[in-house]
Amino acid sequence: MRNLVVQKFGGTSVADTDKIKNVANSVIREKKLGNDVVVVVSAMGHTTDYLMKMAKDISEVPSSRELDMLLSTGEGVSIALLSMAIQAQGYDAVSMNAMQIGIITENVHTKARIIDIKTDKLNKYLSEGKIIVVAGFQGVTEDGEITTLGRGGSDTSAVAIASALDAKRCDIYTDVEGVYTTDPRIVPNASKLDVVTYDEMLELASVGANVLHPRSVETAKQFNMPLRVRSSFNLENRGNLIKGEYDDMEICRPVTGVAVDMSKVRIVVCDVPDEPGVAAKIFTTLADEHISVDTIIQSYARLHNNTNDIAFTINKTDLPRAMELFDKINDEIKADKIHIDDNIAKVSIVGAGMIDRPGVAATMFDTLANLNINIKMISTSEVKISCLVDADVANDALRALHKAFNLGCDVIATVKGDLPNI
Amino acid sequence: MRNLVVQKFGGTSVADTDKIKNVANSVIREKKLGNDVVVVVSAMGHTTDYLMKMAKDISEVPSSRELDMLLSTGEGVSIALLSMAIQAQGYDAVSMNAMQIGIITENVHTKARIIDIKTDKLNKYLSEGKIIVVAGFQGVTEDGEITTLGRGGSDTSAVAIASALDAKRCDIYTDVEGVYTTDPRIVPNASKLDVVTYDEMLELASVGANVLHPRSVETAKQFNMPLRVRSSFNLENRGNLIKGEYDDMEICRPVTGVAVDMSKVRIVVCDVPDEPGVAAKIFTTLADEHISVDTIIQSYARLHNNTNDIAFTINKTDLPRAMELFDKINDEIKADKIHIDDNIAKVSIVGAGMIDRPGVAATMFDTLANLNINIKMISTSEVKISCLVDADVANDALRALHKAFNLGCDVIATVKGDLPNI
Repeated sequence: MRNLVVQKFGGTSVADTDKIKNVANSVIREKKLGNDVVVVVSAMGHTTDYLMKMAKDISEVPSSRELDMLLSTGEGVSIALLSMAIQAQGYDAVSMNAMQIGIITENVHTKARIIDIKTDKLNKYLSEGKIIVVAGFQGVTEDGEITTLGRGGSDTSAVAIASALDAKRCDIYTDVEGVYTTDPRIVPNASKLDVVTYDEMLELASVGANVLHPRSVETAKQFNMPLRVRSSFNLENRGNLIKGEYDDMEICRPVTGVAVDMSKVRIVVCDVPDEPGVAAKIFTTLADEHISVDTIIQSYARLHNNTNDIAFTINKTDLPRAMELFDKINDEIKADKIHIDDNIAKVSIVGAGMIDRPGVAATMFDTLANLNINIKMISTSEVKISCLVDADVANDALRALHKAFNLGCDVIATVKGDLPNI
Repeated sequence: MRNLVVQKFGGTSVADTDKIKNVANSVIREKKLGNDVVVVVSAMGHTTDYLMKMAKDISEVPSSRELDMLLSTGEGVSIALLSMAIQAQGYDAVSMNAMQIGIITENVHTKARIIDIKTDKLNKYLSEGKIIVVAGFQGVTEDGEITTLGRGGSDTSAVAIASALDAKRCDIYTDVEGVYTTDPRIVPNASKLDVVTYDEMLELASVGANVLHPRSVETAKQFNMPLRVRSSFNLENRGNLIKGEYDDMEICRPVTGVAVDMSKVRIVVCDVPDEPGVAAKIFTTLADEHISVDTIIQSYARLHNNTNDIAFTINKTDLPRAMELFDKINDEIKADKIHIDDNIAKVSIVGAGMIDRPGVAATMFDTLANLNINIKMISTSEVKISCLVDADVANDALRALHKAFNLGCDVIATVKGDLPNI
């Protein structure tokens, strides 16, 4: 670990030249604290939308290779302008795109994964005292093809660079206020979380708290890189720290946050034969088409006719493609029918502290039962319990769970260190 | 030489998505003729102005390295969109930026010269039948720094790529109608030239006919690459062919064109000692600062005090910097005074045929004398005679010379092959 901080600023933080000057101030403030600084930026504001609109004007299905060439230009603009803004204040800065650094990715367009980051040029510039301004979101294959990392890609770039350079911290500046116990738009007394673990953050992110892209958190977890989520517009706010595990003093609650996810649809494949290979056929077919499957539940086999139901959830946007695939494979899987349920929501409670507290699940089910809410599916992980419920009652469920686990900002201060063992 | 044509389209030809679709048609038309095609494009329309404005918002003197990073993004957009437009019509296309190709330049920003072009990837894609869409204007140093080629850089990119690939022709599409005997805005009956030589084109370009950047013509001359200048908006017009020398049938006039250049200022360094090293000091000092010097005239030494006057012209935009330099070196060159004359114009007649026709210069001077125009300086090359005159009378001079050499479109048809030996 060295005296180096990686900062990341998203598109809204660099949306115009005045905002870019503000970002330069944040960068220089960190440098003045005695840290080396590498700053990762996204394309300016609506650049990506503008470029996509032109692409769609020209072609209904633009090639993904050319889309990556097109979209990667956005960060070229923002890194050059931010370097100029830093230089204008008398600090030495140098911009670098993914090709110049060598941010090597898989040979996949529009959603490539980083496989290696070359550090020789970065280290050379750092040793010369330069602030390095890096293009986020983009990569390059071993063959020199330009790739992009997909949604949330700049966060992932920042974390990967921080890890490659052994930085002491990666600060993600966003236009939201940070990580809360739940969505403050639904539950007004949601409280800000000072510290969360990677696992909690992953569960909160994947169930709908859109602060960080899950891939960036996974990368941080992999390299144990502390992440700080800060507001670009409120530097007084110290933000949230996301790290491997709580210090003893920090953990004081079984449930850290609650979340709701409306983006899923449930598919039940009914009455498939209870024989080896059926589930494998379904899920490899979906995986081959890059359709992510969320919760999977398989019931006990029905003994009278030796069939199963297999239920799972996928993103609503993937539904049309998934149905086409089922048409193709149904000769093999022999499902009696396929039932679609798109009026659903997944309500989850998340907390690294729940593992040793057996009453947590019971409290959750009890809370939903008191609201007369039917639970359609249940799934659990080490740090999460999720219930599938009707979409119409999801926000009611969220509010009730937030209250039941004492997460409100009016409560959380008083219960700290003094939580009941539910 | 192979069955390959390089095409180049400038910023106005790709200014919006509809125009890009038109360019795709021109590219595909050439491909359908049975040629392999490499197409070089500039940034869309006013992209460069827009990017420069943001840079100036951020810094009064943005670093040239960061300017190159910024401006080079413009071609990234146009190559991706043009590739998509070609693909949308069912043809295979692939975009490449300078870094991907390996368009290697000197390590100079904002006006680098190309020193090498790697052809392995280009040839690989061509052998696969692909149309290659190349980012003009940009290059990369051996160290991976992004450079740009300065004004007219995309023309130079196109010619250099055509030469590197041994193309049979390089077609430069422009928004002007082509190369004329003179500027049609000043002389309405200027005639279009079907064929001109590189040398003529160089002289016409450097004295103000802004069709092609001189560097691109120099590169074409160096590799004897035939250039065709065509109108993007009028494909029926076959354009101008620019090549090494005229075929016997083509040469029929001593003067091909006349031009005027208002961009220069004359500097006279008065009464410097007539001793070795003075001129060298002046012009190496200017060269070190990349100030181009045009015509240089040194008078005979005055015997009574052993001093000289040295007169020369430079671009008006370089004048402030030149004057600073003279302040610095005047202790060494000991000029009595420096006289600036910025109300001047250079009027030139150009023609590869004038070399064997001694009366041409006399006709020029006579024409100016008849208008009572005073000639301030004269310079000549093998294919050009230039006279420095007062700016106020320059256009009158141009019109009179155009008439004196029978260059009007009402005349040129009748005199072809039957020119008087003036």
